[in-house]
Amino acid sequence: MSHNKIAKKLQNIQPSAIRELLKHSKMDGVISLGGGIPDPELFDREGLQLAMENVLTHSWKDAFQYGLSEGNPALRAAICQLMSERAIHCEVDDVVVTSGSQQSLDILARALINPGDVVVVERPTYLAALQVMQLAEANLMSVGTDGDGMIVDELDALLKTVPVKVVYIVPTFGNPGGVTLSEPRRKQLVELSRRYDFVIIEDDPYGEINFTGTTFIPLRSWAEEMENSDRVIYTSTFSKILAPGARVGWLVLPDWLKRQVVNLKQATDLHTSSLSQSLTFHYLNSGRLTPQIALIRDAYKQKCRVLSQHLQHELGGYLTFHQPMGGMFLWAKFNHDMNTTQRLQKTLSHGVVYVPGEFFYCDEPDASTLRMSYVSTTEANLKEAVMRLKSALN
Amino acid sequence: MSHNKIAKKLQNIQPSAIRELLKHSKMDGVISLGGGIPDPELFDREGLQLAMENVLTHSWKDAFQYGLSEGNPALRAAICQLMSERAIHCEVDDVVVTSGSQQSLDILARALINPGDVVVVERPTYLAALQVMQLAEANLMSVGTDGDGMIVDELDALLKTVPVKVVYIVPTFGNPGGVTLSEPRRKQLVELSRRYDFVIIEDDPYGEINFTGTTFIPLRSWAEEMENSDRVIYTSTFSKILAPGARVGWLVLPDWLKRQVVNLKQATDLHTSSLSQSLTFHYLNSGRLTPQIALIRDAYKQKCRVLSQHLQHELGGYLTFHQPMGGMFLWAKFNHDMNTTQRLQKTLSHGVVYVPGEFFYCDEPDASTLRMSYVSTTEANLKEAVMRLKSALN
Repeated sequence: MSHNKIAKKLQNIQPSAIRELLKHSKMDGVISLGGGIPDPELFDREGLQLAMENVLTHSWKDAFQYGLSEGNPALRAAICQLMSERAIHCEVDDVVVTSGSQQSLDILARALINPGDVVVVERPTYLAALQVMQLAEANLMSVGTDGDGMIVDELDALLKTVPVKVVYIVPTFGNPGGVTLSEPRRKQLVELSRRYDFVIIEDDPYGEINFTGTTFIPLRSWAEEMENSDRVIYTSTFSKILAPGARVGWLVLPDWLKRQVVNLKQATDLHTSSLSQSLTFHYLNSGRLTPQIALIRDAYKQKCRVLSQHLQHELGGYLTFHQPMGGMFLWAKFNHDMNTTQRLQKTLSHGVVYVPGEFFYCDEPDASTLRMSYVSTTEANLKEAVMRLKSALN
Repeated sequence: MSHNKIAKKLQNIQPSAIRELLKHSKMDGVISLGGGIPDPELFDREGLQLAMENVLTHSWKDAFQYGLSEGNPALRAAICQLMSERAIHCEVDDVVVTSGSQQSLDILARALINPGDVVVVERPTYLAALQVMQLAEANLMSVGTDGDGMIVDELDALLKTVPVKVVYIVPTFGNPGGVTLSEPRRKQLVELSRRYDFVIIEDDPYGEINFTGTTFIPLRSWAEEMENSDRVIYTSTFSKILAPGARVGWLVLPDWLKRQVVNLKQATDLHTSSLSQSLTFHYLNSGRLTPQIALIRDAYKQKCRVLSQHLQHELGGYLTFHQPMGGMFLWAKFNHDMNTTQRLQKTLSHGVVYVPGEFFYCDEPDASTLRMSYVSTTEANLKEAVMRLKSALN
């Protein structure tokens, strides 16, 4: 049959190496630093059960009936409250509930990108964002990063040479790079979006998983202050702070984009699971999210410390990395000539897997990099993983 | 801002008249025959609560964690069992869980349709299918229907003149037309798909809501018998037989399409709500679906009879319709010159709304038609609705 137009495009963006990796990472005895999967031991079982009891008692019919494409109004109001705690001011009408960040990005790509439009991403950037932008046939370009996140001066130089439609960025505790955009660069980026009239997609799944005492103010918040909110689209999710299986995320949208996004959401799947939305609302309403985030933050901070210290101690001569200030990932680069994709087979035979870095690039891939997730592995296994990595290097 | 490429396309496919209608239909005192919304009074509250208890006891972590893009394997196995009861034979690997039929159609459109590809639909056809096909920039063509469903001879004639990529059809208790494709036409359609090498999308949300003693064998089942399964894609949903709010549907796919659909599903939203999937699995596992379907079938059959009888009695001289053999909709056509879109304002002022028929056409709209849903209105209100319609005609 020759009906599958999309086969080739999707083959390009679903590297079979990664699929194989995911398969192997579930093998007995293998320690996986691969997936970005929250630690299920930290799920708030009691809180989720209480929330479900409230769904079944108080929101019985709503939870099982069709709902608005925009999302459950009570949940959207609760999200506005959460947004104000992140220094973002919005109204219920500005919020659209999605089935997680992945859907937010897919809908935005479909709404914004015409084939050939230039989309600028970080180098490296979130793999699944590359996928949806490629599906929308964007012309992907990248800008380098350092310990302070995206090198915005590089973007400035690029903007002088090419019209840019969208800049996609995970500014806080990024995936995969683990770095955070500095405050001066945040302001500079928002200012550039005005000067060159492009849209910023600010993807913020990890902002609450903050290991420091410093608050990193979202781009959307700077944009309010700089009267440029129309050019920043903010997206976040409950996947990393509550439970990914519910598939509930959200968008904060400027006026000009709302109608199209809601229409696309309707065409895509009518609306996000009413059951998942109702559960999330009742959980937020219970006041348990703040202590739950503190629990996750402390646990991940400790795991990050263990991985960092052991990497530094055992492999400090082989690789360099920026110490994450939050989030779920540590990104490292080998100092010597090393192809982490080719090396994966050997590390697997030593019982440890990671994600090779080259898949996180739309161009100029650096094959000596790798991404390690520390969140769903015990401390003992994080130490063991480092020893296995070390043994696989010789 | 000029970033909203999709605005115009979506404006075309989201008629503002329908949006207005939906707004008005929630007004106090208005009887709505508009939406295709299951009767929440029939939801199996006890069964759903028991299923949720099982989720929280037995599937606790799975229900809140990331899952496979293909869907929960236990649910897919239960769906295979359900499929065998519908005379369709498939394996777990053939089944992909989606977030309802709408998403099934959107993913299929994205996987199959290149801009300009010819997609043939029934005249009239399901509105939201038109939307996703238009989003995929299909070249939509239509074939007429009568009391035996799609006039397949008309399709045959069309196939001689133009290469067709996909035929989209709701063969059993169709939406909006309420008609069912006869057995000879089913075989003829499957045979044509082989001869002209096109793909049939068989959309079957209503097949179980059967008011007759006759079983209507799915196209996918005929295709098995005729060794042409590769060209029939079957999709169905739990929205009409269990609960739409959970947003759980499924696809039965031929081998050549599986990998692309799973990759698209992953790019779209990673996977359908694990919570909704787990709930659906435990509900199916409880054995309550069969009696629940019987309950829905009997209730809708009775409501359909009430609406039909009163329409015939009060308005038999004004309009004609085919008596539905199942499903949720009655489709009628005025005998005299009548524009149901223009007349809507007046019927609203008399306290009843329906969906004007012209929105269900991709071409050759018949503005004298209308769709009435009978399922979420009481019998008393169905009678009253007919009286109000009558009063609005004068």
